[in-house]
Amino acid sequence: MAIHFPAPSSHKVELEGAGAFSPRFDAAGLVTAVVTDIRDGELLMVAHMNAEALRLTLETGIAHYYSRSRAKLWKKGETSGNLQTVHEVRTDCDQDVVWLKVSVSGHDAACHTGRRSCFYRTVQVEDDEAVLVIADDERHFDPEAVYHDGETK
Amino acid sequence: MAIHFPAPSSHKVELEGAGAFSPRFDAAGLVTAVVTDIRDGELLMVAHMNAEALRLTLETGIAHYYSRSRAKLWKKGETSGNLQTVHEVRTDCDQDVVWLKVSVSGHDAACHTGRRSCFYRTVQVEDDEAVLVIADDERHFDPEAVYHDGETK
Repeated sequence: MAIHFPAPSSHKVELEGAGAFSPRFDAAGLVTAVVTDIRDGELLMVAHMNAEALRLTLETGIAHYYSRSRAKLWKKGETSGNLQTVHEVRTDCDQDVVWLKVSVSGHDAACHTGRRSCFYRTVQVEDDEAVLVIADDERHFDPEAVYHDGETK
Repeated sequence: MAIHFPAPSSHKVELEGAGAFSPRFDAAGLVTAVVTDIRDGELLMVAHMNAEALRLTLETGIAHYYSRSRAKLWKKGETSGNLQTVHEVRTDCDQDVVWLKVSVSGHDAACHTGRRSCFYRTVQVEDDEAVLVIADDERHFDPEAVYHDGETK
């Protein structure tokens, strides 16, 4: 048997309560996934999931996403070894976002650039311009050595 | 002078480096905003921003979003008093998500249900069903007393 997600209720109070998980997939069939590290709560990445990715994540305990750029299921870390073990899943009041608390295997990196987190830059305002400043430049692996064209990250 | 966001580069390496912040707004003109509490890193909410909301957030240091349901600019906490002061803004490798680290005024609540965080439910699997369990039911305010129809949350 596989997990089935019922259609979301049109009643706000039902959507916001306990009971069946009824994710509100968008027009493209996706929910947003926010991924933090179970160790210290650091925000690692934001990705998307279709129903299949969400189901596989819940059934296997390993994070699966949907790659919009490659238009296919994406088992995170399949190539790099940086698999994500899911310790807790939460959802928000209107059930269109899931929050995964994970631990990362392999190089302890979630970003395809080799950094621990995709959020390695701060946005700073200088003279009416918004500029990006690199806050974390530690590479946990060499992307060129790990990825080849078209491979799953 | 107002902050202007240049068009994103089509070169991946430029998008991933330091330099001008060039958010990648989607077809609806939005980026995703992930909001955590500066105190302890708790994930409070996920919302969206158009260019105006992002500009106002950077210029004023108070979080502004774009409400998709109301199709208008949304100064978070305008009605409830739960304004969000922004201490740091980060963006991810492809610049389509921003991460705000905030402190919350008023009732110390980000969710319109009165809870501190919108992510007050865990998703648990029981007998091939995914069910929601309420992990935090502490209401910091009474939504019925604070909001009236059509008001900004």
